[in-house]
Amino acid sequence: MRLVIIGGVAAGTKAASRARRVDPNLEITIYQEEPEVSISECGMPYLISGVVEYRDALIARTPEDFAEKDVEVLTRHRVEKIDPDDKKLVVKNLATEEQFEDAYDRLIISTGGKAIIPPIDGMDAEGVFVLRFLSDTDKIMDFVQKRSPRKAVVIGGGYIGLEVSENLVALGMEVTIVEARDRIGGAAYGHEVADRIRRHIEEKGLRVCVGEEVETLLADGEGYVRAACFGERKIEAEIMIVATGATPEGTLAEEAGAKIGTFGAIRVDKHLKTSLPDVWAAGDCAESMNLITGEPGWEPLGDTANQMGRVAGTNAAHGEDVLEFPGILNTGVFKVFDLGVAKTGLSEEEAHGLGFDAVSAAVESGSKAGYFPGGGPVFVKLVADGETGRLLGAEVAGENADKYVDICATALWGRLSYPDLVNLDLAYAPPFGPTLSPVIAAASVLANEFEKEIEGVQASE
Amino acid sequence: MRLVIIGGVAAGTKAASRARRVDPNLEITIYQEEPEVSISECGMPYLISGVVEYRDALIARTPEDFAEKDVEVLTRHRVEKIDPDDKKLVVKNLATEEQFEDAYDRLIISTGGKAIIPPIDGMDAEGVFVLRFLSDTDKIMDFVQKRSPRKAVVIGGGYIGLEVSENLVALGMEVTIVEARDRIGGAAYGHEVADRIRRHIEEKGLRVCVGEEVETLLADGEGYVRAACFGERKIEAEIMIVATGATPEGTLAEEAGAKIGTFGAIRVDKHLKTSLPDVWAAGDCAESMNLITGEPGWEPLGDTANQMGRVAGTNAAHGEDVLEFPGILNTGVFKVFDLGVAKTGLSEEEAHGLGFDAVSAAVESGSKAGYFPGGGPVFVKLVADGETGRLLGAEVAGENADKYVDICATALWGRLSYPDLVNLDLAYAPPFGPTLSPVIAAASVLANEFEKEIEGVQASE
Repeated sequence: MRLVIIGGVAAGTKAASRARRVDPNLEITIYQEEPEVSISECGMPYLISGVVEYRDALIARTPEDFAEKDVEVLTRHRVEKIDPDDKKLVVKNLATEEQFEDAYDRLIISTGGKAIIPPIDGMDAEGVFVLRFLSDTDKIMDFVQKRSPRKAVVIGGGYIGLEVSENLVALGMEVTIVEARDRIGGAAYGHEVADRIRRHIEEKGLRVCVGEEVETLLADGEGYVRAACFGERKIEAEIMIVATGATPEGTLAEEAGAKIGTFGAIRVDKHLKTSLPDVWAAGDCAESMNLITGEPGWEPLGDTANQMGRVAGTNAAHGEDVLEFPGILNTGVFKVFDLGVAKTGLSEEEAHGLGFDAVSAAVESGSKAGYFPGGGPVFVKLVADGETGRLLGAEVAGENADKYVDICATALWGRLSYPDLVNLDLAYAPPFGPTLSPVIAAASVLANEFEKEIEGVQASE
Repeated sequence: MRLVIIGGVAAGTKAASRARRVDPNLEITIYQEEPEVSISECGMPYLISGVVEYRDALIARTPEDFAEKDVEVLTRHRVEKIDPDDKKLVVKNLATEEQFEDAYDRLIISTGGKAIIPPIDGMDAEGVFVLRFLSDTDKIMDFVQKRSPRKAVVIGGGYIGLEVSENLVALGMEVTIVEARDRIGGAAYGHEVADRIRRHIEEKGLRVCVGEEVETLLADGEGYVRAACFGERKIEAEIMIVATGATPEGTLAEEAGAKIGTFGAIRVDKHLKTSLPDVWAAGDCAESMNLITGEPGWEPLGDTANQMGRVAGTNAAHGEDVLEFPGILNTGVFKVFDLGVAKTGLSEEEAHGLGFDAVSAAVESGSKAGYFPGGGPVFVKLVADGETGRLLGAEVAGENADKYVDICATALWGRLSYPDLVNLDLAYAPPFGPTLSPVIAAASVLANEFEKEIEGVQASE
């Protein structure tokens, strides 16, 4: 029995490990286009500045490590075609340019995502980079070392743009972020959090242009980028990073006839099986279910890919559907300088857009007991369904953002409502937080919104 | 309409604030035996060493603050009797020794807890203290300043004993903890966590005796304590802190005929109403429901008292039951030196004791991505019901213990099972944690326990 896995980053390598654990006799091969597998892509922005000290730290396991577990890893190999009827693959060895055929009994597609490249004139100038693969990081670091750019433009103010900006500032560069949307931080955050991010990064010396689309990149006579232009404005810079998001890489699956879902991701059932026989998909290339809406969702993040890989690997090794992947909440967190920013579920705008009668409440709290040293401010916003009181989403910015968002994500998973959150038995001690968690404090304000009539009964008598 | 509240720390003051919010016309009086109200008792150990810099920092609100909201606060007043038939109270003004009668329409009992004093000979020696009220802290600090004790014995190795010990060490004292149980950290922790606590505090220079009950305290000719004795052993010290736990202070309610529950706490229904007409109870003196077992529970902590106060205050102000207090999970966290320790739900021993076919799994993880600077080790243990897979409890020791336990507490509240925890969509970014949260990692090990047959299917073919 032969399992082939296309793509060897988070989902693919996890799937391989699980499949091996389930079935010691399975023949397992991973095809990977890039020169390495098991890359911690989320760490790449931090390699640029040296926060992550050396490149190999981002490679969790090598092909040799997999060989020890009897998993074959073929790097620099691109699968060019899937023939689902005959269960065959066309593969190209990128080192030799040689093409060959392979066969599978079961197949996992974990081809990841691809960077969105906006239609900007002059994108082929030297010094313009995306940050998708470790090889992109290599190119950026090589360019920085050789050309010592002093000024940078980062196109896109989502979390990757922000992380990259912070690390370019750490290298001493003067950085301008240009964001097409009306706010920084990505579409999923409301204005309260977006404004907090903007204030924080401007305090750190970043320049921010929102609501602006870069139209043209200017280069010098040698072809090196020199400026980003939009409208009447021209921002000089010797390096540009394009961080305008990603889409699922589902081309190979689509060409093989697999159904593609709403987000351009490969459609899968709850067992992560595609519409093709004996083919599963996992990671950034695959669709998920949004657990708040019950509709298709997409969450291109390393932890989700890992979790999906566990399910796909188990099911593919069995050849039957033993595990389910329930779905996603679009939970995320990022750090920019000293500010933690996190969200889970729906933003208020998203909730309204989906037809919910959304009710929201927000607090600005301390992250420790007022009398206890340390800590700092944190903003927590909760969004609930006005009809049922059920939590729909949360946004957090400030101290312990990761902690508070995980409470909210778990509450969303458990379909908790505002009275649950008000009374939730969380852990308290002065070194760790105020008497009532900022999540409980925000839920209390939310409860006041819902309980206006309760509060009013006596008052209006 | 007159609402009287007996006891003005966490539950009582919260109840007063809520009642005022619900009904601006209600007459509200708080009787408080101690000289202050609204005391942050959890911060008291940190006042001793100066981590909390000044005494007033622990007083959240003064009687004058309450007067501004038209809430009367009478400190140094002890309610000595409740007459539930005539809705009358006998009150003693401790300043004047004068006794008088008062009447209520509705009553909230929030008399808190009382320290357990073990039967040790010589407990009346000078230099022997409990840490229950702010006035106890005053006495300890006064004694430390006047007598400069160099050696201390702390009787009881639960969280308060540990917090006090740390703060005595911070004052330069040589501290020995004597604990009657076979382990440090309190009965609710298993040996894995207890051993970690012990190793950590011994590294910090504390001496620990477990399984030993202090029998006698020796004093010098002037009556000052000099040593704690048990068996053949004699441990010299010039100050002793007795931290052997607390029980509910329900005497007043019991004498008035209120039903008392399993833990000696005042029995209440889900609206926090006692068995007496128009009398509610909240905080450390009141019973709760344990949400894991559905049986009576008790959780004498400031955050729970605050949450109960909200419910009792709202219901008492209405005179009817508009809000419910769902119950507790016995979630707790404490810090001792650099170690965070936390738990929620049932320990493995407790689960077995209650007849659950408990399955457990534990991991030792890093608190950040391996390649990211900072972070440290953390131990997470999960306990689940072997029949249903439902989470029953969690213990955590190490970095971010507060974060991981809150995820587990929220999962318990939502009655999540191990497949939920494995797939839970938590927030990930390298500065905040490893790709998979230690909670998810522990849940994966737990899942392996449950899914042995799944993993074995192919392997055994």
